[in-house]
Amino acid sequence: MAKELKNLTKRSDNYSQWYNELVVKADLAEQSAVRGCMVIKPYGYAIWEKMQRNLDDMFKETGHVNAYFPLLIPKSFLSREAEHVEGFAKECAVVTHYRLKNAPDGSGVVVDPAAKLEEELIIRPTSETIIWNTYKNWIQSYRDLPILCNQWANVFRWEMRTRLFLRTAEFLWQEGHTAHATREEAEEEALRMLHVYGEFAEKYMAVPVVKGIKSANERFAGALETYTIEAMMQDGKALQSGTSHFLGQNFAKAFDVQFVNKNNEMEYVWATSWGVSTRLMGALIMTHSDDNGLVLPPKLAPIQVVIIPIYKNEEQLEQINEKVDGIVKNLKALGISVKYDNADNKRPGFKFADYELKGVPVRLVMGGRDLENNTVEVMRRDTLEKSTVSCDNIEMYVKELLDEIQENIFRKALNYRDSRTISVDTYEEFKEKIEEGGFILAHWDGTPETEEKIKEETKATIRCIPLDRDKTPGKCMVTGKDSVCRVVFARSY
Amino acid sequence: MAKELKNLTKRSDNYSQWYNELVVKADLAEQSAVRGCMVIKPYGYAIWEKMQRNLDDMFKETGHVNAYFPLLIPKSFLSREAEHVEGFAKECAVVTHYRLKNAPDGSGVVVDPAAKLEEELIIRPTSETIIWNTYKNWIQSYRDLPILCNQWANVFRWEMRTRLFLRTAEFLWQEGHTAHATREEAEEEALRMLHVYGEFAEKYMAVPVVKGIKSANERFAGALETYTIEAMMQDGKALQSGTSHFLGQNFAKAFDVQFVNKNNEMEYVWATSWGVSTRLMGALIMTHSDDNGLVLPPKLAPIQVVIIPIYKNEEQLEQINEKVDGIVKNLKALGISVKYDNADNKRPGFKFADYELKGVPVRLVMGGRDLENNTVEVMRRDTLEKSTVSCDNIEMYVKELLDEIQENIFRKALNYRDSRTISVDTYEEFKEKIEEGGFILAHWDGTPETEEKIKEETKATIRCIPLDRDKTPGKCMVTGKDSVCRVVFARSY
Repeated sequence: MAKELKNLTKRSDNYSQWYNELVVKADLAEQSAVRGCMVIKPYGYAIWEKMQRNLDDMFKETGHVNAYFPLLIPKSFLSREAEHVEGFAKECAVVTHYRLKNAPDGSGVVVDPAAKLEEELIIRPTSETIIWNTYKNWIQSYRDLPILCNQWANVFRWEMRTRLFLRTAEFLWQEGHTAHATREEAEEEALRMLHVYGEFAEKYMAVPVVKGIKSANERFAGALETYTIEAMMQDGKALQSGTSHFLGQNFAKAFDVQFVNKNNEMEYVWATSWGVSTRLMGALIMTHSDDNGLVLPPKLAPIQVVIIPIYKNEEQLEQINEKVDGIVKNLKALGISVKYDNADNKRPGFKFADYELKGVPVRLVMGGRDLENNTVEVMRRDTLEKSTVSCDNIEMYVKELLDEIQENIFRKALNYRDSRTISVDTYEEFKEKIEEGGFILAHWDGTPETEEKIKEETKATIRCIPLDRDKTPGKCMVTGKDSVCRVVFARSY
Repeated sequence: MAKELKNLTKRSDNYSQWYNELVVKADLAEQSAVRGCMVIKPYGYAIWEKMQRNLDDMFKETGHVNAYFPLLIPKSFLSREAEHVEGFAKECAVVTHYRLKNAPDGSGVVVDPAAKLEEELIIRPTSETIIWNTYKNWIQSYRDLPILCNQWANVFRWEMRTRLFLRTAEFLWQEGHTAHATREEAEEEALRMLHVYGEFAEKYMAVPVVKGIKSANERFAGALETYTIEAMMQDGKALQSGTSHFLGQNFAKAFDVQFVNKNNEMEYVWATSWGVSTRLMGALIMTHSDDNGLVLPPKLAPIQVVIIPIYKNEEQLEQINEKVDGIVKNLKALGISVKYDNADNKRPGFKFADYELKGVPVRLVMGGRDLENNTVEVMRRDTLEKSTVSCDNIEMYVKELLDEIQENIFRKALNYRDSRTISVDTYEEFKEKIEEGGFILAHWDGTPETEEKIKEETKATIRCIPLDRDKTPGKCMVTGKDSVCRVVFARSY
């Protein structure tokens, strides 16, 4: 096998470097000329498109519609909601001018000082402010509610340390922004979308997640409650993969959005917002992939099956082509995306390594002996196991195999997470165990101060208070004060 | 009918005002708090999504893939290609800082002067520069070609006079950027995409277009040839609806993108770019709609069929509900999007007017007599004709009616355009006729000077040199010099 194609660092040698290399070598994304901004390459974008399509269907099934709001936000909007400005002002890209002109010395273009904006505009780091300013005009009465809008958009946060997909200055995401007549309805909505995210992560990405509530320290700037899905990567670190916020009436108050309720009284509107981003690509890559490259869940793989011929001469190739044409047709009829790669400018070994690197779930190889025996060699990417299978009804075999791979990689990731999730009762043991990575279930007294102390001393944060938590009370491992349940600690991305 | 709901200006009274009102009243889009930036509302966005989906399928069928490139472009990139900078520098939003801080007086946030960028970044007005800077690293040999990338993105051009969908500072679009080994291949690609746009406009939008070549004056900044599709609005003005550019080697030279060709020689790469935007929404609205509101082509209508019950009491409503449920099910089985509106808080007359305003192609109304007779009243939005039809096999009737409406509104628009397209031989006649609007086919000597003179004196421009032009030579209507063919003149949006 053409291992030289990959030359991929092993996970055990340097997990971080393995990830960085894999993203580039598998043609998913690369750094651009603009600091912190990535180029999402066609193969990476094809995976993102599949994520988008499936999520979008799930949003629509739960009654949401798409809309589009402006990229730029007046600077003053950001400071309307006190906590929100604290959370986002530090990382904003600011537009101050609207025109360039030729440099007097002919060296290029310079900013035209005459074209200075009266009020600066910021590139949206998130859109609560501009959207609630818009909703003000859409909502007069309870009959105008609920509003269940989502937008697919780019956002920008000036991050100092960036990594492809995991933390980039510009990223792609969806942001849902809903408006409700009652507190209960908004709280239900925030939870509903958390479950949509959880289902998407587990059913499509095959990434098991812990659903839970963020502590006050980790809450979204402006939210009363932040729900999260947390996944575990193969280095034992947590990756926050999606959040859903119950915003209370904070943004309605900041933008004066009131409505006449059923009792004919004026009331502020209740809000939620929720989002997932291209960060999910990072979660997908780091959960399943191995030292040979990507491992993609069949439901999100741009190419689910690749077929490669091995032949001695043109005549044999023609026979294989003919046989494979029928298989391709039957696979496509089952809705399976298949690529037949009979390009003659690359050796089979090179192709094998390349499709392994790209994580194609199933590989079929047909050679001369297969022709004679009416068979094909099947390799599954998740286990790298090969078997020789009859061509009769091969399409149903492949279809079932794809389902089996989808389930297997989820099971594998779940077993891995469970094997690295432990309960700890003393802070001493916590400090020792956290060095090994993984999720630690421990008691905490519920105060931001204790959480902050733990973070400073161990770099671990509370990932969430799980929805399905063990509610046996105990004593905080740090302060010994009462604790109502165990929460999930981990180091994180 | 609840005409008060609409209160829409008549086209004959003020076409421009009719358009502006219609966009807002039909819930398609509205102005935002940011000058020149629009909010695309859910109903408008649903139409845009349908356009996107169909175009994206057509791009993929012609071998293209999607990718994503950065929103921000280093200022210096813009000036690499001499004509490009002239075309775009004047209308750029410029990012100069990357942080805000609390104002010392506590009044909000101010730009942190310490966070000034070394090189300013501009929000992409179009992405040739950042993409060709990226392609430089993707292309070494002819084996790396062609590259056939498209991106769906937002772009920003600081326009002084804006109108919803037609000319906005921020707009949504797709931009294809392809790289080729030969001039011929790139020229073919530019033409191929022109034809894709033409097919989309005519088959999906039901908007007839003239396909042609732009004169030098109207060419894209940096292109050797710009192809265009030009549509005629109901006021006789032209709307440029999509362009495809043959860029030659201009951007490859500006960004030093060379490859080793089959003869083992270094050569600059050949390029195209092509795009359509949310401006298509303007073309769609202005081509078909009438004084009652939108008229949408069935292929792009978010709701193709609406069903409204008229009932005396709850018992009758229940009978109608039951009957309609079956019809809805059968329509959905045919892939028709249908809405049953039995909400009890609005009168039927209000609903009728609202769905007319929103351009729903087919309306079914079922009342007590219909129940008795097993019939339903069918109204088609394009002609407003009503008929009473048996419920037996109503779904096939509706399906055929949708096809008929799609064809009819195209035919109507085509007839209208043809009726307002004339040939003119003298400049005197031209100046008289151009006041009436419409397309004028006239001879022109081929010089930018003459075109400029005509524009100054009549506000008309050459919309294109049609691909299927009348090649009978003649004399320029202004200078009397030789002309090889007639070109299309019009006033335009």
